[in-house]
Amino acid sequence: MKKQNLILVVSLFLVALSAFIVTGSNKNEVAYPDGYRNWTHVKTLILEKGHPLYEAFGGIHHIYANKKALDGYKAGNRFGDGSVIVFDLLETVAADNAISEGKRKVVGVMEKNSKKFKDTGGWGFEGFKGDSRERVVKNMDGECFSCHLSQKDRDYVFSEYRK
Amino acid sequence: MKKQNLILVVSLFLVALSAFIVTGSNKNEVAYPDGYRNWTHVKTLILEKGHPLYEAFGGIHHIYANKKALDGYKAGNRFGDGSVIVFDLLETVAADNAISEGKRKVVGVMEKNSKKFKDTGGWGFEGFKGDSRERVVKNMDGECFSCHLSQKDRDYVFSEYRK
Repeated sequence: MKKQNLILVVSLFLVALSAFIVTGSNKNEVAYPDGYRNWTHVKTLILEKGHPLYEAFGGIHHIYANKKALDGYKAGNRFGDGSVIVFDLLETVAADNAISEGKRKVVGVMEKNSKKFKDTGGWGFEGFKGDSRERVVKNMDGECFSCHLSQKDRDYVFSEYRK
Repeated sequence: MKKQNLILVVSLFLVALSAFIVTGSNKNEVAYPDGYRNWTHVKTLILEKGHPLYEAFGGIHHIYANKKALDGYKAGNRFGDGSVIVFDLLETVAADNAISEGKRKVVGVMEKNSKKFKDTGGWGFEGFKGDSRERVVKNMDGECFSCHLSQKDRDYVFSEYRK
Protein backbone atom coordinates (compact mmCIF):
# COMPACT_ATOMS: atom_id res chain seq x y z
CA MET A 1 0.00 0.00 0.00
CA LYS A 2 1.24 3.42 -0.93
CA LYS A 3 2.02 5.76 1.92
CA GLN A 4 -0.70 8.17 0.74
CA ASN A 5 -3.29 5.39 0.67
CA LEU A 6 -2.28 4.27 4.14
CA ILE A 7 -2.76 7.80 5.45
CA LEU A 8 -6.18 7.92 3.76
CA VAL A 9 -7.27 4.63 5.31
CA VAL A 10 -6.04 5.65 8.78
CA SER A 11 -7.80 9.03 8.43
CA LEU A 12 -11.08 7.41 7.41
CA PHE A 13 -10.81 5.01 10.34
CA LEU A 14 -10.28 7.93 12.75
CA VAL A 15 -13.28 9.78 11.32
CA ALA A 16 -15.44 6.69 11.76
CA LEU A 17 -14.12 6.16 15.31
CA SER A 18 -14.90 9.78 16.21
CA ALA A 19 -18.43 9.46 14.87
CA PHE A 20 -18.86 6.25 16.87
CA ILE A 21 -17.66 7.93 20.06
CA VAL A 22 -19.81 11.04 19.53
CA THR A 23 -23.04 9.21 18.76
CA GLY A 24 -22.51 6.39 21.22
CA SER A 25 -22.20 2.70 20.59
CA ASN A 26 -25.98 2.35 20.33
CA LYS A 27 -27.91 5.37 19.20
CA ASN A 28 -31.00 4.25 21.06
CA GLU A 29 -29.31 3.93 24.43
CA VAL A 30 -29.97 6.32 27.31
CA ALA A 31 -26.76 7.76 28.72
CA TYR A 32 -25.81 7.36 32.38
CA PRO A 33 -26.82 10.67 34.02
CA ASP A 34 -23.40 11.82 35.18
CA GLY A 35 -23.53 14.42 37.94
CA TYR A 36 -27.25 14.00 38.65
CA ARG A 37 -26.68 14.21 42.41
CA ASN A 38 -26.05 17.93 41.87
CA TRP A 39 -29.24 18.42 39.85
CA THR A 40 -32.42 19.83 41.35
CA HIS A 41 -34.27 17.55 43.74
CA VAL A 42 -37.87 17.50 42.51
CA LYS A 43 -39.61 15.38 45.16
CA THR A 44 -39.41 12.22 47.26
CA LEU A 45 -41.77 9.29 47.82
CA ILE A 46 -41.55 6.14 49.92
CA LEU A 47 -43.32 2.96 48.78
CA GLU A 48 -43.87 0.44 51.57
CA LYS A 49 -44.79 -3.25 51.69
CA GLY A 50 -48.29 -3.73 50.39
CA HIS A 51 -48.01 -1.03 47.72
CA PRO A 52 -48.81 -2.45 44.25
CA LEU A 53 -45.43 -1.26 42.95
CA TYR A 54 -43.47 -2.51 45.98
CA GLU A 55 -41.85 -5.41 44.15
CA ALA A 56 -40.44 -3.15 41.47
CA PHE A 57 -39.97 0.15 43.31
CA GLY A 58 -40.20 -0.48 47.06
CA GLY A 59 -38.02 1.86 49.14
CA ILE A 60 -37.40 5.59 49.07
CA HIS A 61 -37.00 7.33 45.74
CA HIS A 62 -35.85 10.83 44.96
CA ILE A 63 -36.55 12.48 41.63
CA TYR A 64 -33.87 14.77 40.17
CA ALA A 65 -34.12 17.01 37.10
CA ASN A 66 -31.44 18.54 34.94
CA LYS A 67 -31.87 22.21 33.96
CA LYS A 68 -34.00 21.47 30.89
CA ALA A 69 -36.21 19.03 32.74
CA LEU A 70 -36.66 21.53 35.57
CA ASP A 71 -37.87 24.07 33.01
CA GLY A 72 -40.24 21.37 31.75
CA TYR A 73 -41.68 20.69 35.20
CA LYS A 74 -42.17 24.42 35.77
CA ALA A 75 -43.92 24.74 32.42
CA GLY A 76 -46.53 22.23 33.67
CA ASN A 77 -44.83 19.02 32.58
CA ARG A 78 -43.95 19.96 29.01
CA PHE A 79 -40.42 18.74 28.40
CA GLY A 80 -38.04 19.78 25.64
CA ASP A 81 -35.38 17.60 24.05
CA GLY A 82 -32.39 17.26 26.33
CA SER A 83 -34.52 16.94 29.46
CA VAL A 84 -33.28 14.21 31.75
CA ILE A 85 -35.16 12.98 34.83
CA VAL A 86 -33.60 10.62 37.36
CA PHE A 87 -35.53 8.26 39.64
CA ASP A 88 -32.98 7.41 42.35
CA LEU A 89 -34.24 4.41 44.33
CA LEU A 90 -32.68 3.49 47.66
CA GLU A 91 -33.54 0.86 50.24
CA THR A 92 -35.23 2.10 53.39
CA VAL A 93 -33.88 1.22 56.80
CA ALA A 94 -36.48 1.47 59.57
CA ALA A 95 -35.14 1.56 63.13
CA ASP A 96 -35.84 3.43 66.36
CA ASN A 97 -38.84 5.27 64.92
CA ALA A 98 -36.85 6.67 62.03
CA ILE A 99 -36.64 5.72 58.36
CA SER A 100 -33.25 6.32 56.82
CA GLU A 101 -31.72 5.72 53.42
CA GLY A 102 -29.97 2.45 52.68
CA LYS A 103 -28.21 1.02 49.65
CA ARG A 104 -29.02 2.22 46.15
CA LYS A 105 -31.27 -0.21 44.29
CA VAL A 106 -31.45 1.40 40.88
CA VAL A 107 -30.90 4.70 39.07
CA GLY A 108 -33.85 5.03 36.71
CA VAL A 109 -33.52 7.52 33.87
CA MET A 110 -35.88 9.19 31.40
CA GLU A 111 -34.15 11.08 28.60
CA LYS A 112 -36.16 13.20 26.16
CA ASN A 113 -35.17 13.00 22.52
CA SER A 114 -38.17 13.15 20.25
CA LYS A 115 -36.32 11.71 17.25
CA LYS A 116 -34.25 9.02 18.95
CA PHE A 117 -37.14 7.72 21.05
CA LYS A 118 -40.12 8.53 18.85
CA ASP A 119 -41.78 5.16 19.50
CA THR A 120 -41.98 5.74 23.26
CA GLY A 121 -43.42 9.24 23.49
CA GLY A 122 -40.07 10.89 22.79
CA TRP A 123 -38.61 9.44 25.98
CA GLY A 124 -35.83 6.91 26.37
CA PHE A 125 -35.98 4.77 29.52
CA GLU A 126 -33.15 2.99 31.31
CA GLY A 127 -32.23 1.68 34.72
CA PHE A 128 -28.71 1.28 36.11
CA LYS A 129 -28.38 -1.35 38.83
CA GLY A 130 -27.24 -0.08 42.24
CA ASP A 131 -24.10 2.00 41.96
CA SER A 132 -23.06 0.29 38.75
CA ARG A 133 -23.44 1.09 35.07
CA GLU A 134 -25.18 -2.24 34.46
CA ARG A 135 -28.28 -1.69 32.34
CA VAL A 136 -31.46 -3.41 33.46
CA VAL A 137 -34.09 -2.38 30.91
CA LYS A 138 -34.44 -4.86 28.05
CA ASN A 139 -37.57 -3.42 26.52
CA MET A 140 -38.37 0.29 27.04
CA ASP A 141 -41.86 -0.09 25.67
CA GLY A 142 -43.04 -3.08 27.63
CA GLU A 143 -41.14 -2.46 30.86
CA CYS A 144 -41.52 1.33 31.14
CA PHE A 145 -43.54 3.18 28.55
CA SER A 146 -46.63 0.96 28.81
CA CYS A 147 -47.15 2.28 32.34
CA HIS A 148 -46.03 5.89 31.66
CA LEU A 149 -48.56 5.99 28.82
CA SER A 150 -51.24 6.66 31.45
CA GLN A 151 -49.58 10.07 32.02
CA LYS A 152 -49.82 11.18 28.40
CA ASP A 153 -51.39 14.51 29.38
CA ARG A 154 -48.33 15.27 31.50
CA ASP A 155 -45.81 14.31 28.85
CA TYR A 156 -45.64 10.74 30.23
CA VAL A 157 -44.09 11.93 33.51
CA PHE A 158 -45.70 10.86 36.81
CA SER A 159 -43.94 13.34 39.08
CA GLU A 160 -44.54 17.04 39.50
CA TYR A 161 -42.16 19.58 40.98
CA ARG A 162 -42.82 19.93 44.72
CA LYS A 163 -41.94 23.46 45.77
CA MET B 1 -30.94 74.64 53.32
CA LYS B 2 -28.49 75.36 50.55
CA LYS B 3 -28.72 73.16 47.51
CA GLN B 4 -25.18 71.84 48.11
CA ASN B 5 -26.02 70.93 51.71
CA LEU B 6 -29.16 69.17 50.61
CA ILE B 7 -27.16 67.11 48.12
CA LEU B 8 -24.67 66.25 50.88
CA VAL B 9 -27.41 65.14 53.27
CA VAL B 10 -29.15 63.03 50.61
CA SER B 11 -25.81 61.47 49.64
CA LEU B 12 -24.97 60.57 53.24
CA PHE B 13 -28.42 59.08 53.66
CA LEU B 14 -27.94 56.92 50.57
CA VAL B 15 -24.52 55.75 51.79
CA ALA B 16 -26.04 54.79 55.14
CA LEU B 17 -28.93 53.03 53.43
CA SER B 18 -26.55 51.06 51.20
CA ALA B 19 -24.50 49.99 54.21
CA PHE B 20 -27.70 48.91 55.96
CA ILE B 21 -28.82 46.88 52.98
CA VAL B 22 -25.41 45.24 52.50
CA THR B 23 -24.86 44.27 56.12
CA GLY B 24 -28.45 43.44 56.89
CA SER B 25 -30.68 44.96 59.49
CA ASN B 26 -29.16 42.78 62.18
CA LYS B 27 -25.62 41.61 61.64
CA ASN B 28 -26.20 38.48 63.68
CA GLU B 29 -29.16 37.30 61.66
CA VAL B 30 -29.01 34.31 59.32
CA ALA B 31 -30.26 35.16 55.84
CA TYR B 32 -33.15 33.30 54.23
CA PRO B 33 -31.48 30.75 51.90
CA ASP B 34 -32.87 31.98 48.58
CA GLY B 35 -32.73 29.37 45.83
CA TYR B 36 -31.87 26.47 48.13
CA ARG B 37 -34.25 24.13 46.26
CA ASN B 38 -31.69 24.14 43.45
CA TRP B 39 -28.78 23.33 45.76
CA THR B 40 -27.39 19.83 46.13
CA HIS B 41 -29.58 17.38 48.00
CA VAL B 42 -27.36 15.84 50.68
CA LYS B 43 -29.65 13.24 52.27
CA THR B 44 -33.14 12.57 53.62
CA LEU B 45 -34.45 11.20 56.93
CA ILE B 46 -37.96 10.53 58.26
CA LEU B 47 -38.65 10.83 62.00
CA GLU B 48 -41.80 9.03 63.10
CA LYS B 49 -43.96 9.11 66.21
CA GLY B 50 -42.01 7.78 69.15
CA HIS B 51 -38.70 9.28 68.04
CA PRO B 52 -37.22 11.49 70.79
CA LEU B 53 -37.07 14.43 68.36
CA TYR B 54 -40.56 13.88 66.96
CA GLU B 55 -42.09 16.88 68.68
CA ALA B 56 -39.54 19.26 67.22
CA PHE B 57 -38.64 17.56 63.95
CA GLY B 58 -41.24 14.88 63.16
CA GLY B 59 -41.83 14.39 59.43
CA ILE B 60 -39.54 14.06 56.44
CA HIS B 61 -36.53 16.31 56.17
CA HIS B 62 -34.18 16.89 53.28
CA ILE B 63 -30.75 18.42 53.74
CA TYR B 64 -29.46 20.77 51.03
CA ALA B 65 -26.00 22.29 50.73
CA ASN B 66 -24.78 25.31 48.79
CA LYS B 67 -21.54 24.91 46.82
CA LYS B 68 -19.26 25.81 49.75
CA ALA B 69 -21.11 23.53 52.14
CA LEU B 70 -20.94 20.69 49.62
CA ASP B 71 -17.17 21.15 49.48
CA GLY B 72 -17.23 21.02 53.28
CA TYR B 73 -19.16 17.76 53.38
CA LYS B 74 -16.80 16.23 50.84
CA ALA B 75 -13.81 17.35 52.89
CA GLY B 76 -15.15 15.24 55.79
CA ASN B 77 -17.37 17.85 57.42
CA ARG B 78 -14.94 20.76 57.51
CA PHE B 79 -16.88 23.84 56.47
CA GLY B 80 -15.52 27.16 55.30
CA ASP B 81 -17.15 30.55 55.81
CA GLY B 82 -20.03 31.02 53.41
CA SER B 83 -21.24 27.44 53.78
CA VAL B 84 -24.99 27.24 54.14
CA ILE B 85 -26.89 24.07 55.02
CA VAL B 86 -30.68 23.83 54.83
CA PHE B 87 -32.83 21.42 56.85
CA ASP B 88 -36.11 21.40 54.91
CA LEU B 89 -38.80 19.79 57.09
CA LEU B 90 -42.11 18.68 55.58
CA GLU B 91 -45.07 16.85 57.03
CA THR B 92 -45.43 13.21 56.02
CA VAL B 93 -48.67 11.91 54.58
CA ALA B 94 -49.07 8.15 54.97
CA ALA B 95 -51.75 6.52 52.81
CA ASP B 96 -52.16 3.34 50.74
CA ASN B 97 -48.76 1.95 51.78
CA ALA B 98 -46.92 5.03 50.62
CA ILE B 99 -45.41 7.97 52.51
CA SER B 100 -45.51 11.22 50.58
CA GLU B 101 -44.51 14.78 51.31
CA GLY B 102 -47.00 17.19 52.84
CA LYS B 103 -46.85 20.82 53.89
CA ARG B 104 -43.59 22.49 54.80
CA LYS B 105 -43.14 22.81 58.57
CA VAL B 106 -39.92 24.76 58.78
CA VAL B 107 -36.84 25.71 56.76
CA GLY B 108 -33.94 25.30 59.17
CA VAL B 109 -30.67 27.02 58.24
CA MET B 110 -27.06 26.81 59.38
CA GLU B 111 -24.81 29.54 58.01
CA LYS B 112 -21.07 29.46 58.62
CA ASN B 113 -19.41 32.76 59.49
CA SER B 114 -16.68 32.32 62.03
CA LYS B 115 -16.60 35.98 63.02
CA LYS B 116 -20.31 36.75 63.04
CA PHE B 117 -21.25 33.61 64.95
CA LYS B 118 -18.12 32.96 66.98
CA ASP B 119 -20.08 32.11 70.14
CA THR B 120 -21.88 29.19 68.47
CA GLY B 121 -19.05 27.32 66.79
CA GLY B 122 -18.92 29.71 63.85
CA TRP B 123 -22.46 28.75 62.83
CA GLY B 124 -25.57 30.88 62.81
CA PHE B 125 -28.85 29.01 63.25
CA GLU B 126 -32.33 30.03 62.14
CA GLY B 127 -35.69 28.53 61.29
CA PHE B 128 -38.28 30.00 58.93
CA LYS B 129 -41.83 28.87 59.60
CA GLY B 130 -43.53 26.95 56.78
CA ASP B 131 -43.28 28.80 53.50
CA SER B 132 -42.93 32.16 55.24
CA ARG B 133 -40.01 34.33 56.24
CA GLU B 134 -41.13 34.30 59.88
CA ARG B 135 -38.16 33.60 62.13
CA VAL B 136 -38.67 31.04 64.87
CA VAL B 137 -35.33 30.84 66.68
CA LYS B 138 -35.11 33.15 69.68
CA ASN B 139 -31.88 31.82 71.12
CA MET B 140 -29.36 30.13 68.79
CA ASP B 141 -27.30 28.82 71.66
CA GLY B 142 -30.01 27.28 73.79
CA GLU B 143 -32.35 26.14 71.02
CA CYS B 144 -29.81 24.87 68.46
CA PHE B 145 -26.13 24.95 69.32
CA SER B 146 -26.48 23.16 72.66
CA CYS B 147 -27.51 20.02 70.77
CA HIS B 148 -25.15 20.50 67.79
CA LEU B 149 -22.28 20.78 70.29
CA SER B 150 -22.29 16.97 70.48
CA GLN B 151 -21.05 16.95 66.85
CA LYS B 152 -18.00 19.12 67.53
CA ASP B 153 -15.68 16.66 65.76
CA ARG B 154 -17.77 17.05 62.59
CA ASP B 155 -17.88 20.84 62.71
CA TYR B 156 -21.18 20.73 64.62
CA VAL B 157 -23.02 19.20 61.66
CA PHE B 158 -25.06 16.01 62.19
CA SER B 159 -25.51 15.07 58.56
CA GLU B 160 -23.01 13.56 56.14
CA TYR B 161 -23.21 13.57 52.37
CA ARG B 162 -24.96 10.41 51.16
CA LYS B 163 -23.58 9.51 47.75
